Amino acid sequence: MIVLKNQEFIQRDNAKTDIEDRGYTFGDGVYEVIRVYNGAFFMLKEHLERLQFSLTETAIPYDTDSEDLGTLLNQLVSKNQIKNGAIYLQITRGIAPRSHPYPKQTPPQLYAYPIPVSSPVDAQQNGVSVTLLEDRRWLRCDIKSLNLLYNVMAKQQAKENGHFEALLYRDEAHITEGSSSNFFAVKNGTVITHPANNYILNGITRLAILKVCDQLGIPFEERELRIRDLESIDEAFLASTTSEVVPITEVDQQKIGDGKAGEITSRILEGFKELIRQADV
Amino acid sequence: MIVLKNQEFIQRDNAKTDIEDRGYTFGDGVYEVIRVYNGAFFMLKEHLERLQFSLTETAIPYDTDSEDLGTLLNQLVSKNQIKNGAIYLQITRGIAPRSHPYPKQTPPQLYAYPIPVSSPVDAQQNGVSVTLLEDRRWLRCDIKSLNLLYNVMAKQQAKENGHFEALLYRDEAHITEGSSSNFFAVKNGTVITHPANNYILNGITRLAILKVCDQLGIPFEERELRIRDLESIDEAFLASTTSEVVPITEVDQQKIGDGKAGEITSRILEGFKELIRQADV
Repeated sequence: MIVLKNQEFIQRDNAKTDIEDRGYTFGDGVYEVIRVYNGAFFMLKEHLERLQFSLTETAIPYDTDSEDLGTLLNQLVSKNQIKNGAIYLQITRGIAPRSHPYPKQTPPQLYAYPIPVSSPVDAQQNGVSVTLLEDRRWLRCDIKSLNLLYNVMAKQQAKENGHFEALLYRDEAHITEGSSSNFFAVKNGTVITHPANNYILNGITRLAILKVCDQLGIPFEERELRIRDLESIDEAFLASTTSEVVPITEVDQQKIGDGKAGEITSRILEGFKELIRQADV
Repeated sequence: MIVLKNQEFIQRDNAKTDIEDRGYTFGDGVYEVIRVYNGAFFMLKEHLERLQFSLTETAIPYDTDSEDLGTLLNQLVSKNQIKNGAIYLQITRGIAPRSHPYPKQTPPQLYAYPIPVSSPVDAQQNGVSVTLLEDRRWLRCDIKSLNLLYNVMAKQQAKENGHFEALLYRDEAHITEGSSSNFFAVKNGTVITHPANNYILNGITRLAILKVCDQLGIPFEERELRIRDLESIDEAFLASTTSEVVPITEVDQQKIGDGKAGEITSRILEGFKELIRQADV
């Protein structure tokens, strides 16, 4: 495997970082996971834009344009001969003696490499169950940062209890998103999802779904949902770069709608797959 | 410099970790900073107990007793001939392909090494100013985790505006602690600090101060303070392993008490220094 380290391609075995990389001591960095279909990136531009947003918000002095990151990533896909999969990419504030305030001259440290992902076909067809857990993350979930410990703990707890994902809620039972996915409900034919604010990550698949809804003429609403709203929705689904669109059939022991993958959800999944095919042309 | 890597002592230059160390990709790890005075650890037992708490809460399978960590750390101090300074120590969930749920068989990865610290004598004598910032951290601040991005951002903002520290508050103006320190107020002779719950890190220096107050017969109260309470307190101070006890003379542009290092704060600082001398015997 070939790894991109800053501007350089290196062998996987040599991809090590110093123990004083601020990514290692503070989680002081940001990341993206970008899907590759049929040898080409899907929505690369949107991922790079969000990456630049995360970099700017954390004041990590890396400019994706001037570093020509898109070109480097395309080279990385070629060098690793990826047909279907994903590239994981992280940029940290670089290596410096441990101290909370940061030196401004330290060069950021970038690593990018392939990670294996495949569409969860069975989950997409039959739907999954999720479990409600309190959202204990920080209040800048709009930054795609390396501070993922709570996401990890929530996902692990969900998995150990036989669920596909943890569905997170804040005080007063306000549902935000999954531990590594956005959450969508369908009610009376309208798709509802959390507004893109500091409580959620504005997923790239979320953006794609917005587009798909537009194309299919499905009304789309961005607003908060409460736990008790789950009783009255007709369908629900999750969306993420790695799992695409996955119907939710059960939240803890409670069925969503008739407990089967919903019809509008299926149309959106089909529309999303069509988007991938179009991108591929 | 000699670095402790798991059970092994290695040269600093060789201290690198794999890019798939979960500490690097998820901030999936915990840490401690332990002070060394006159060649000996100060409150090592308490630091190891808190470390074990953090490990247990995050389900990182590392047992400080069975690994004989205390002995290894003492060897690290000797090998580096540290007289006054500190040891930084972190334990991550180890190296594994990137995925939120974690493998349970992966060995945790430990690194420990000296970091330079010295008592901020001028700040301790003359006091410092702090700035109020919203506490946007996660809701498990009692775990000393590597997810420190917001702490970093807050400290940086404080520093850039000429302050020693950021004083953090949650919704409804509830003061929690500093970005890397605990906060204390003194009112009518009583020391007041935040209860040791999930909103703050239960500092080891905080524990020492509790002991000092007991010894000096100074009443101590654990309760929440609001921003408006700052107007009516007589003294305030910060406490941390690296800065020990530092009087706060100003919060943003507002003076605390008469705007000078407080008398009770000075007695506590003296009592803390006496505790260090006693530990040294």
